[in-house]
Amino acid sequence: MPVVMPDKLTEICKSILVRLGLSEEDAFIIADSTVKADLRGVHSHGIMRFPSYIPRIESGVVNLHPEIETIAEGHSYAWIDGDNGPGQVVAVRAAEIAIKKARKNGVCAVLTRNTNYLGMLAYYTMKIAEENMIGIMFVNAPPFVAPYGCREAKLGTNPISVAAPTGRDFPFVLDMGITSGVVGKIRLAALKGERIPENWAIDKYGRPTTDPEEALEGALVPIGEAKGYALGLAVEILSAVITGGSIVPDMPHPIFDLSQPPNLGNTIMAIDIETFVGVDEFLDRMNSLINHIKGCKKAEGVSEVLIPGELEYRLEQKQLKEGITVHEETWKQIGLLAEKYRVGLEMV
Amino acid sequence: MPVVMPDKLTEICKSILVRLGLSEEDAFIIADSTVKADLRGVHSHGIMRFPSYIPRIESGVVNLHPEIETIAEGHSYAWIDGDNGPGQVVAVRAAEIAIKKARKNGVCAVLTRNTNYLGMLAYYTMKIAEENMIGIMFVNAPPFVAPYGCREAKLGTNPISVAAPTGRDFPFVLDMGITSGVVGKIRLAALKGERIPENWAIDKYGRPTTDPEEALEGALVPIGEAKGYALGLAVEILSAVITGGSIVPDMPHPIFDLSQPPNLGNTIMAIDIETFVGVDEFLDRMNSLINHIKGCKKAEGVSEVLIPGELEYRLEQKQLKEGITVHEETWKQIGLLAEKYRVGLEMV
Repeated sequence: MPVVMPDKLTEICKSILVRLGLSEEDAFIIADSTVKADLRGVHSHGIMRFPSYIPRIESGVVNLHPEIETIAEGHSYAWIDGDNGPGQVVAVRAAEIAIKKARKNGVCAVLTRNTNYLGMLAYYTMKIAEENMIGIMFVNAPPFVAPYGCREAKLGTNPISVAAPTGRDFPFVLDMGITSGVVGKIRLAALKGERIPENWAIDKYGRPTTDPEEALEGALVPIGEAKGYALGLAVEILSAVITGGSIVPDMPHPIFDLSQPPNLGNTIMAIDIETFVGVDEFLDRMNSLINHIKGCKKAEGVSEVLIPGELEYRLEQKQLKEGITVHEETWKQIGLLAEKYRVGLEMV
Repeated sequence: MPVVMPDKLTEICKSILVRLGLSEEDAFIIADSTVKADLRGVHSHGIMRFPSYIPRIESGVVNLHPEIETIAEGHSYAWIDGDNGPGQVVAVRAAEIAIKKARKNGVCAVLTRNTNYLGMLAYYTMKIAEENMIGIMFVNAPPFVAPYGCREAKLGTNPISVAAPTGRDFPFVLDMGITSGVVGKIRLAALKGERIPENWAIDKYGRPTTDPEEALEGALVPIGEAKGYALGLAVEILSAVITGGSIVPDMPHPIFDLSQPPNLGNTIMAIDIETFVGVDEFLDRMNSLINHIKGCKKAEGVSEVLIPGELEYRLEQKQLKEGITVHEETWKQIGLLAEKYRVGLEMV
């Protein structure tokens, strides 16, 4: 499989998007957030998703030049309408507002409606963590998960992300859906002809399955049964019910439905560390916490206990040097897009 | 086992606390939140815990007359020091501040340090939901959970609660720790001589166990393995690292250590619904969401799909009429306390 340097991959994606009519700045945000997902090993939101962005742009279902409107705002909140712009562009704007208001007023919540698919949540919460704040994000998603007691998909994987500085090389990063399985990874498994782990999914009859094709016709199951289900509904309320974004029963598929905008919603928050315990003390306390966790007695076969975000950081450092391995099929699709939009793979 | 009417149980607990020197108002908060846990079926935070409150008061390790101090505040945040007061009293104050500021300024986060054990989180987030706001709470806890890759308890069950109005009889209530097992329920199982479910815990050697005594010497395991672990650390950061409350490596046991105050921390947030999509539309949307979930194809043996908080509401309604069944041993302890503090079980 081809190994591509991340800068080159970003430049290819950006160039295609610019040819499609996006501004340099917005094209960079989309390309950068996509490649960042691969760098962190979150391939399900990485370059394999990029080709699916293009028909949405070509069909005009996404607004490439949104005028993001503030519906309401206060010292510590903003409610914004993304004007059906690219999800990544709108979410970066939301994160910027959250940072600015939290810097001045301690905390901020930005609620967004009328946006599109935004990829990996950690891209946005990590931007907040870089500013010595805690970033929190809630996003709902199309129905791939069976609620507790159900045998069909009625709820999204509804991810949550929390990021915070640690004082070490890597930030703390939680970025998780409510399932052990991830639809993107199941698609990747189907693409690669691999099985999926147990406890990820049920088939359309409600039976556990390790066949990715069967799983795609069935549903994912939430972690901790009723707990994961409840967490998913909490995210639905925080990201959609209160923002005015599509709730799951009304959501057009944000990737595959080209007939109408999905009106996605999300909520992002920033809590300024200096306003509370202070950055120095926060980092001291994070250091104690990390040492405490890393110093525990390890399970059999475990050589090191990792902090969430640490493995992803190491992968990023490695791939920044060695390049990203792109699946043949994805690379072929990128090649066709580059050809169509007159972007030379060697030129960039 | 004795069945006691909830009002009577509240009155007994309150009277004992008043004899111990608490104000009528604060004694009521503690008694009410304790009995409310039983009413909702969360017995692990209910009356079985009450006897453990008493030695903490008798020993003077809890400050019965705290002067809760605001360390810092803004339009949409407050950072408060609980002055080592009873956790329930300090948390009700925090919820009140969150409601007041969110009503005026859309959102509010209240970060607390130097408080004590506060029981069931839903007691506080539901107070926020009653005001047509979304309540969110994060609390850390002493180490009972093995982080992913470990075989000893180094992390708390670190609960999260989210509550919101639904327009139906019951509010939406998520109130969950990061484990399927709950230490209080394991203690109850040990008390009753029952086994615990699989996937709750490991013994001290890291082996799965269904023996509650072995589990109490071992550790709970997080839901979704690495995911539950990451969620637990996120809660640790939000409730303790940033608030100045005890982080898990430094936390004196908040129930059993009578030698020093535990300096617990927590964070509670309120998001005012009217500021965003508006209460009417929010309730319409909740209604659609609930109908969508309840209308799904049910798993085998399931007659009804429940919304988080619905079962607890039904239990509450039932027990309000029929009374709460109290374990013999607990009732005996309550009897001894009533005798010691001259509170007649029949008189109240």
